[in-house]
Amino acid sequence: MEKKPIGNTVKWFGELKSTNDYATSIAHFDGSHGIVIASEFQSQGRGQRGNQWESEKGENLLFSIVLHPRFLEVRNQFLLSKAIALSLCDVLSVFTNGVSIKWPNDIYIGNKKVAGILIEHSFSSIYLDTTIIGVGLNVNQSVFLSSAPNPTSLYLEFGQNFDIAVLLNSVCNAFNKRYAEVEANQYRISENYLQNLFRYEVFHKYRALDQMFTAKIIGVRNSGELMLQTIEGERLEFAFKEIEYVL
Amino acid sequence: MEKKPIGNTVKWFGELKSTNDYATSIAHFDGSHGIVIASEFQSQGRGQRGNQWESEKGENLLFSIVLHPRFLEVRNQFLLSKAIALSLCDVLSVFTNGVSIKWPNDIYIGNKKVAGILIEHSFSSIYLDTTIIGVGLNVNQSVFLSSAPNPTSLYLEFGQNFDIAVLLNSVCNAFNKRYAEVEANQYRISENYLQNLFRYEVFHKYRALDQMFTAKIIGVRNSGELMLQTIEGERLEFAFKEIEYVL
Repeated sequence: MEKKPIGNTVKWFGELKSTNDYATSIAHFDGSHGIVIASEFQSQGRGQRGNQWESEKGENLLFSIVLHPRFLEVRNQFLLSKAIALSLCDVLSVFTNGVSIKWPNDIYIGNKKVAGILIEHSFSSIYLDTTIIGVGLNVNQSVFLSSAPNPTSLYLEFGQNFDIAVLLNSVCNAFNKRYAEVEANQYRISENYLQNLFRYEVFHKYRALDQMFTAKIIGVRNSGELMLQTIEGERLEFAFKEIEYVL
Repeated sequence: MEKKPIGNTVKWFGELKSTNDYATSIAHFDGSHGIVIASEFQSQGRGQRGNQWESEKGENLLFSIVLHPRFLEVRNQFLLSKAIALSLCDVLSVFTNGVSIKWPNDIYIGNKKVAGILIEHSFSSIYLDTTIIGVGLNVNQSVFLSSAPNPTSLYLEFGQNFDIAVLLNSVCNAFNKRYAEVEANQYRISENYLQNLFRYEVFHKYRALDQMFTAKIIGVRNSGELMLQTIEGERLEFAFKEIEYVL
């Protein structure tokens, strides 16, 4: 059986509670690998750490990808996060040089967040079974009301509107290439991820364990942990909720 | 809020497609941690590796436990497999000395399989979010029709019928203690698991990569891989589907 490209099937909705939840509900059907669920509005859109995801109806690109990456060991799950983050960089870098990935998976233009990613996995044994990748890319929205510290959109950055369906198609094309890289060659994905990483190899301030300290990012594990070296030379490693960037 | 013991709430069904699927469907409700779903019959009961699970209506103990082990890193997920396997050993060892755990999670009496376990996890970030533990324990069934190589039941081993609800209660009591050990002290769980492991530290035949070889089991990682040492002294490691026991 020929494998269809990711994004070959796109289901568009006017409104869903959450594209990730809908994608999860169809993920147990045969042939669901690569299906994309997109929605003009999410009534219960979710972000990292249980945060809500703010998005005005019809203004932004909100979608989830269903994957069955059964070749990938659970301990290397973060390669999929690297792959989708790089795909967004690949697409946005056509418009500007200022794109970077803020670990673990926010997409920045300069010092502002233009996209967020929420990845949910399920597995039995040591290989992944299902991965749902949710993406929220701020496209034509001009005002942000929530208390999120630094949102931006393509409209705010470039002063023009973008076609949301065209952007989705571009992201899917980029992700097909990056996903093939995960299947074939994990080394290159990780190298490209570091090249695009916000604050990579530059000293900045961070907060962890109720302490402020100065350190530079020196790497990111395939399991997801951020590796830092303090200005005193000590090496540290943090999971997602254990460290805060001082912006 | 006081935490209820695992198994404090048991929902009994006459028939379900699969107790794991039902447990998964309720796992996103607040307060679902520790709920047990039990069924007299499963129309689509599943085992490891996509196998069907054979069980005659009303004769056996079929249940799934909903857990939210958000303290546990994904890379240590196999500690939950060790905990449930040990709980079944704890209960069955009251009746016989012949109980052991065949890696990854079959329960044997002598050289025959009396119980199977199917564990499914979901996560986002590096910590587990939800774990569904499905158990099928053969209790009063006297004839097995499927092509599974070596089934047995408590009835076949001990020549008497057992009360299925009482057994479930015993397993839940044992699992509450073992789960607390995972929360508190992962070392002891792993040590006890090895003490109960079928073929631990004894040379036997195995098949992997189309080759037969003689080796002894020397350990099991917290991520699940089986560690062996061949009779020539070489150390090998295998994931779930990569090695076959020659019985």
